[in-house]
Amino acid sequence: MKHWNRIDESSSWPSILARRAEDLAGVLTPERIASRSIPAGGGLSYSYAAMDADDTTIAMLASVAKELDLVGQYQAVATGQAMNPGENRMVLHHIARGTPFGPVVKDGRDYRAFYEGERMRAAAFADRVRSGTVVGSTGKRFERVIQIGIGGSDLGPRALYLALEQWARERGRLSLRASFISNVDPDDANGVLSGLDPETSLFILVSKSGTTQETLANEALVKAWLSSKAGIDPSRHLVAVTSESSPLARNPGYLDSFYIDDYIGGRYSATSAVGGVILSIALGPDTFEAVLRGAAEADEAALEPEMGKNAAMMDAMLGVFERDVLGRPSVAVLPYSQALSRFPAHLQQLDMESNGKRVDRYGEPARVPSGPAVFGEPGTNGQHSFYQHLHQGTDIVPLQFIAFRKNQTSFDPEFEGSTARKKLNANLAAQIVAFAVGKDDQNPNKRFPGGRPSSLLIGDELDPKALGALLAHYENKVMFQGFAWNLNSFDQEGVQLGKKLTSAVLASNGPTDPALAAYARLLGAL
Amino acid sequence: MKHWNRIDESSSWPSILARRAEDLAGVLTPERIASRSIPAGGGLSYSYAAMDADDTTIAMLASVAKELDLVGQYQAVATGQAMNPGENRMVLHHIARGTPFGPVVKDGRDYRAFYEGERMRAAAFADRVRSGTVVGSTGKRFERVIQIGIGGSDLGPRALYLALEQWARERGRLSLRASFISNVDPDDANGVLSGLDPETSLFILVSKSGTTQETLANEALVKAWLSSKAGIDPSRHLVAVTSESSPLARNPGYLDSFYIDDYIGGRYSATSAVGGVILSIALGPDTFEAVLRGAAEADEAALEPEMGKNAAMMDAMLGVFERDVLGRPSVAVLPYSQALSRFPAHLQQLDMESNGKRVDRYGEPARVPSGPAVFGEPGTNGQHSFYQHLHQGTDIVPLQFIAFRKNQTSFDPEFEGSTARKKLNANLAAQIVAFAVGKDDQNPNKRFPGGRPSSLLIGDELDPKALGALLAHYENKVMFQGFAWNLNSFDQEGVQLGKKLTSAVLASNGPTDPALAAYARLLGAL
Repeated sequence: MKHWNRIDESSSWPSILARRAEDLAGVLTPERIASRSIPAGGGLSYSYAAMDADDTTIAMLASVAKELDLVGQYQAVATGQAMNPGENRMVLHHIARGTPFGPVVKDGRDYRAFYEGERMRAAAFADRVRSGTVVGSTGKRFERVIQIGIGGSDLGPRALYLALEQWARERGRLSLRASFISNVDPDDANGVLSGLDPETSLFILVSKSGTTQETLANEALVKAWLSSKAGIDPSRHLVAVTSESSPLARNPGYLDSFYIDDYIGGRYSATSAVGGVILSIALGPDTFEAVLRGAAEADEAALEPEMGKNAAMMDAMLGVFERDVLGRPSVAVLPYSQALSRFPAHLQQLDMESNGKRVDRYGEPARVPSGPAVFGEPGTNGQHSFYQHLHQGTDIVPLQFIAFRKNQTSFDPEFEGSTARKKLNANLAAQIVAFAVGKDDQNPNKRFPGGRPSSLLIGDELDPKALGALLAHYENKVMFQGFAWNLNSFDQEGVQLGKKLTSAVLASNGPTDPALAAYARLLGAL
Repeated sequence: MKHWNRIDESSSWPSILARRAEDLAGVLTPERIASRSIPAGGGLSYSYAAMDADDTTIAMLASVAKELDLVGQYQAVATGQAMNPGENRMVLHHIARGTPFGPVVKDGRDYRAFYEGERMRAAAFADRVRSGTVVGSTGKRFERVIQIGIGGSDLGPRALYLALEQWARERGRLSLRASFISNVDPDDANGVLSGLDPETSLFILVSKSGTTQETLANEALVKAWLSSKAGIDPSRHLVAVTSESSPLARNPGYLDSFYIDDYIGGRYSATSAVGGVILSIALGPDTFEAVLRGAAEADEAALEPEMGKNAAMMDAMLGVFERDVLGRPSVAVLPYSQALSRFPAHLQQLDMESNGKRVDRYGEPARVPSGPAVFGEPGTNGQHSFYQHLHQGTDIVPLQFIAFRKNQTSFDPEFEGSTARKKLNANLAAQIVAFAVGKDDQNPNKRFPGGRPSSLLIGDELDPKALGALLAHYENKVMFQGFAWNLNSFDQEGVQLGKKLTSAVLASNGPTDPALAAYARLLGAL
């Protein structure tokens, strides 16, 4: 296994540490805005004109990225090389969407063909549900599809579905509305079920291991609910998405099963069957295919060796600069698109679970701060909420804006001289400039310091292809940052201790640890 | 106007700055868990056993709180004294819920009576809608109620409605389902409207000034949608919540109007008519009254002069310690209750808009870092998402857990020996201990450092009273922190510059600033 250097071992790092934030007052010229833009795939562009790194800093970051061979590491991952000592695990979400990678063959299995085969089986099944060939156990057509899953089996697929629900509805492509049950809190499942009819509901159980506590508990609740209606056979209302070695695989309790494997991590699984089955059923297989095409375009764009032409790498390295040099511990993701309402929650998992780590892939303590805290809400909503802190707080939070030039829906009457779309994007232009440049005032309360950096991912319209590219851009950005920090971005050991202690509370003899027992009693769980 | 000291002017501050985080390994005894608990009103308790401040630190924080006279400042605010030089504005959200404050009389108006009168008018109107006495313009009963508002006119009311929707449904109290339109992005309104019938839809337009750009644009869109159906008179499908001086007041374009005023800030307005009209219509006036009673109980609990008996003050001062002494810039709010899915988004506004300020109330630069960044998602969902970062990231994020011993909904079959409720709360007990104590391991990847502090607000059940107390606990916590940092927590000058630049983009001659024009063109807004 090749050895990869740490970021502080690259020759430019000491000089980068001495760099400061660029003063954004006066530098935000139309020329800079035009030139600091990189295609990101799927029709998206990444604009970094309002980031507070000057050309010298960027050149140094590019040379670190080159020394650390970020593109080489990406190619190694995407072609099936295991990257982390101590585990022999491949990371194959890229090949699940086809070009530019594949085949990857191991132990006689062609993984590209395997994932593609599952996608086609899911497409055929989705067509049968959409056409009414597959119906519920009382003979009625399915009208609603509900995913039961948590973490990566929930956040990514939910964010993608919500991103395309209106788009599909307006174009007559929304065959079945989708819902999601994730939390082990039974008020979650009961809330979703309160709007459903067992006869017309199709559930998708998603658990790679087939042992996820929350998901199995919710399945049990859903099965009891289905069985409470006369004539319903739950096995005809449930499909499984799981690995071939799980207890859910080839199980007569399910109408059908679709497979993933251990080489696609939960938070990277939206473009596998984890997202593919529900999106194909709700929005159509062609819509899901377009998402994959967009993702593959972003994957291809991320192969560009020059950082100045590689949007994901530029985004990643500017983030490293903000985090490690300027000392900014969090990032806000601010989509000016209501359809992306849950996209920040997906990115929270993607980023914080991948790079929220204090030990590098060689088991040594991280030499510099790693992954930031990520939060966000759609604009303009956030403007009336936490933007006060972003404009005038004592800390600086780097901002990631996402925007589109067109609506998904067509009804947009003019009011006071402009459409709502124009108002929305005018607000965003105003915010970018206000954050960067600020404004002086005699009254210190009304003074805006400026110097608040932001980037912008901009596309024409939030359609399936742009959405796929958006998803993959962030996956690749987070991957590049993981390489730069020398982390294993594809494990999540930090979730294990909680699982173990939960089992101790639920064990028949209860927990032996007195603090655990005291908290369990306080919470009524003992 | 009385002068209030800055935090670094209090005599204990220099010794507090020398304090360190308490090592939580070994100190988390059942005795500590039992004794570090304070009633917070509405049946809630605030548990701070797992916070990393030892008794000496807490005693010093208490003496700072006493020197700064936090309770005195609270009493001054709640009895109508203006607190900030340069503006003569009262802050009256406390008296909107009655005990323990009132009356406040100014210029001949008794404000307690005014808010109470509006609440009763809203209750009577809600009863007429719920009973079918007030109907739509084609004679049909209203079946859905939709709030149009943004910021405080959206986040608080939406969080409260979602928190009680299942509770009310199970108890036969959900008369009309509620929806919310906030974003100026037309895809938001079109998405909500796609599920509605104009004949049976009642809209509540909420804008204190009557000039909020997003809200008026959405009203125009909704009116056009209503008018597109034959026989619909929009004025019979719209009510207004606004101030008496706004253009929406006493306007024949609305079925009725309910009033607030400038003394109730947007993010503190959920217990005024801003939340009251929609909650009374959807869930019943008695449900809304119970929310107010819970809030009043928390307000009363926050009057306790001793910090050891004042949950909101303890929460506030421990937060100051985390932020200013231990240097932790963000806070995660983690409700183990799916019904509180949007409560963190409300707290994000409440906290970041109130205390995200770099200038104190005397116009001087803040001497210490002020309000933190706030984010959060319900548990157990977060466990499968960003908890990796919380357990093993390079930064420490203080955690605020919220939990209840009982479900809102009754369907909770046992699975593998326990109910889902028991699993949910067992998970939380496990997380608190795992974060605090950690676990060693030979494999550095599997090592948990511990020392990650958390607090817990715990109640029996998330009913209207507990919800009101929860809301007011956080309002009072944020208020106390604002006093400690000597901020004006009740203004939001940081939102003004964006509004001004937006107007410049939308002006008929376009913006003169070249950067603004370039961004507006890039975004298709010019």
